[in-house]
Amino acid sequence: MRILSSDIAKFVDQTILIQGWLHKKRLLGGITFINIRDRRGIVQIVVEDENEIEKLRGLQIGTVLEVSGLVKQEDRAPGGFELHQAQITVMVPVINEPPIEIDKPLSHKSDNLDTLFDNRPIGLRNLAESDIFRLRALLITYIRDFLIAEDFVEINSPKLVGGAAEGGAEVFNLDYFGKEATLAQSPQLYKQIMVGVFERVFEIGPAFRAELSATTRHVSEVTMLDVEIGFIENHDDVLKLLETMLYQVLTKLYQTSADMLKRLNAPALVLKPSFPRYKMSEIHEMYQKATGHDVSQELDLIPDEERWICDYAAKHLNCQAVFATDLPDKKMKFYHMKGENGVARSADLLFRGIEISTVPQREHRYQELVSQMEKAGIDPNSPAFAPYVSAFKYGLPPHGGFGFGIDRLTQKVIGLSNVKEAILFPRDINRLNP
Amino acid sequence: MRILSSDIAKFVDQTILIQGWLHKKRLLGGITFINIRDRRGIVQIVVEDENEIEKLRGLQIGTVLEVSGLVKQEDRAPGGFELHQAQITVMVPVINEPPIEIDKPLSHKSDNLDTLFDNRPIGLRNLAESDIFRLRALLITYIRDFLIAEDFVEINSPKLVGGAAEGGAEVFNLDYFGKEATLAQSPQLYKQIMVGVFERVFEIGPAFRAELSATTRHVSEVTMLDVEIGFIENHDDVLKLLETMLYQVLTKLYQTSADMLKRLNAPALVLKPSFPRYKMSEIHEMYQKATGHDVSQELDLIPDEERWICDYAAKHLNCQAVFATDLPDKKMKFYHMKGENGVARSADLLFRGIEISTVPQREHRYQELVSQMEKAGIDPNSPAFAPYVSAFKYGLPPHGGFGFGIDRLTQKVIGLSNVKEAILFPRDINRLNP
Repeated sequence: MRILSSDIAKFVDQTILIQGWLHKKRLLGGITFINIRDRRGIVQIVVEDENEIEKLRGLQIGTVLEVSGLVKQEDRAPGGFELHQAQITVMVPVINEPPIEIDKPLSHKSDNLDTLFDNRPIGLRNLAESDIFRLRALLITYIRDFLIAEDFVEINSPKLVGGAAEGGAEVFNLDYFGKEATLAQSPQLYKQIMVGVFERVFEIGPAFRAELSATTRHVSEVTMLDVEIGFIENHDDVLKLLETMLYQVLTKLYQTSADMLKRLNAPALVLKPSFPRYKMSEIHEMYQKATGHDVSQELDLIPDEERWICDYAAKHLNCQAVFATDLPDKKMKFYHMKGENGVARSADLLFRGIEISTVPQREHRYQELVSQMEKAGIDPNSPAFAPYVSAFKYGLPPHGGFGFGIDRLTQKVIGLSNVKEAILFPRDINRLNP
Repeated sequence: MRILSSDIAKFVDQTILIQGWLHKKRLLGGITFINIRDRRGIVQIVVEDENEIEKLRGLQIGTVLEVSGLVKQEDRAPGGFELHQAQITVMVPVINEPPIEIDKPLSHKSDNLDTLFDNRPIGLRNLAESDIFRLRALLITYIRDFLIAEDFVEINSPKLVGGAAEGGAEVFNLDYFGKEATLAQSPQLYKQIMVGVFERVFEIGPAFRAELSATTRHVSEVTMLDVEIGFIENHDDVLKLLETMLYQVLTKLYQTSADMLKRLNAPALVLKPSFPRYKMSEIHEMYQKATGHDVSQELDLIPDEERWICDYAAKHLNCQAVFATDLPDKKMKFYHMKGENGVARSADLLFRGIEISTVPQREHRYQELVSQMEKAGIDPNSPAFAPYVSAFKYGLPPHGGFGFGIDRLTQKVIGLSNVKEAILFPRDINRLNP
């Protein structure tokens, strides 16, 4: 019976069988050591017998092996135990040297990103790389667990749609049996419709943007979390939902996964259950006082200001997340609720230096929505929008919501320099493979 | 503070506040009764005061209300309690009559499907309709919980790909910054690549097929579960994984959701931890003996045979699921492992009369895979396939997996006649909205 690397400590002085990939091979003081990787980690094996060493001749990293051996305590081995008297069976031989080294602590820090992504199927076998995606999967699981416990129902909205939800230009179009379809940029319209059914809904799924820029921030396919909640009093309820979710999810991740986060040099978590809130004008003033840079005429926070206020809050208020409130309503979408005096009923969530999400109340009143759509040049009677509008015509309560990229959150949690490093197989203007 | 419909029993003889949608209004023996729907269900309210009744004049189903009232036990009310001395506040008035009735027990049984889907945003407010999607969300949650407990890591593979994974004709193509991209038909190649990283992976996400047929079975966007597992001995390990998963997930669903399933007239669950296994030739023989219909020359089970063997197993072996084994390898894809004597290393899972999934072992040996690709007319060195092939070149263990539509499983669990009824906003050749 196969024993996993994480369980060998239970079998001291017993002979066990392990299976996995040859991860490392080295000769040290005349003794051959090999590391075997399985889904739980690494086992160190001492190969003493000449015949066994001979079986590995010419075989490369990646070779799939079955090894039986006697478990011995050894403080210098990873995990404190190793196998002796190894008997090796080659399950799948690999005779070519891998195109990318998989035993460096953090290959993406030194490698060129294109090399990394070109060789992704092999590079992901690096334990640091794969830890990124274990953490990402845990983030998703904890977010779902939180939302389901809060009565949210998971939905799957269509990705093939008849019109661009937000009316933007950056959409992918395709021929749909002779009609034109677009790839959904977000589940915005669907999640609002579903408030009329379940009050509280969420979705984690792909979203598509035909981003023409080839910067580190632009990818054409992202994994979005989308959340919508009905029967709110105002957008403050949505802010509270988001801060509670992030606080609980991240606290749990740092508790359960301290080892992985440490190996990846992730920043320590500094977060409070309630995030500090500042008006945009207050941030402008504080920033000017601290840096001498006058940004009072800006309609939004400038990138350096986002970094500055997060650093400030982390240092002085023990919280790496900040809500910027009282933003001007110039950026308002047709489905946002208009505020008073030019101030949006919305806030931006900043986390570790960047904006993660916009957190608005929606316009839920039928007449007002129709009027805002018309002002935005959208026909509320068109086939793509009429069903959406009908949800309001037949009664939607006050509601709000937010969305953010799982990729982006993973990036910021771990402290990766490029969002693409948090995506298994990233897509941008230059990359459609692997 | 708002109290939810499911909690009112805790507040007998107290005045509470509820919020929700006007779901039903009727005059009975001179008394006005209204039903309010919230995310947990229905509350019946007795409106005695003329002024309160007047507030509802001209308002239609869907109107969003806040109602305070005194909780009283009343055996004839849904849930056994109702509110008296109602004080009504209209939060969002609805003045148009809804385009579709939402108070029938199972509207989809009588309504035309096109009417149902055209009015989906409102029709989903029918409690029977929304229960379908609560059950669907629970199915997904239980599947995930099972797989995560079995050490599977959740992945998100790209939906924009450079080539059709299975080489089929029924793909959607689109312009991707001047190159041609296709929408992923399945995560097949990616999940196999990821076996090299995590051994065990799964994904629940959209898949796209340009199905030209407009039958009840054909939709162009589905939500697929995809599972892949490494270090198997043979495809029997994959069968065991699938039967254990389905048995545990469905048993749990029927335990936690008996009320909903009953209201939807779902068939009773008849399932054993191990599903009966029959060779295709055995099923052919049994079917011929029972029906007189000679199907011995068929290369696959015919639809009536699939129904027959499931009925047979349910009746005689107490199991609505059956594995059909020893299928001919004529249907084999390039990534399947060739069997012996023309028999595929694979089985079909049949559940309640239809095939749900094919459960094969993959070809994990590099040279054999390359040779099978070439025979299938696929260039292993093309940009779309070279990264896939590299995962094998640098070592993949024996592995296998399966995939099936969450929509299809939801349909069969509840006993819906059309798979589209299990999809929130279905897409087919004629339908791209809502």
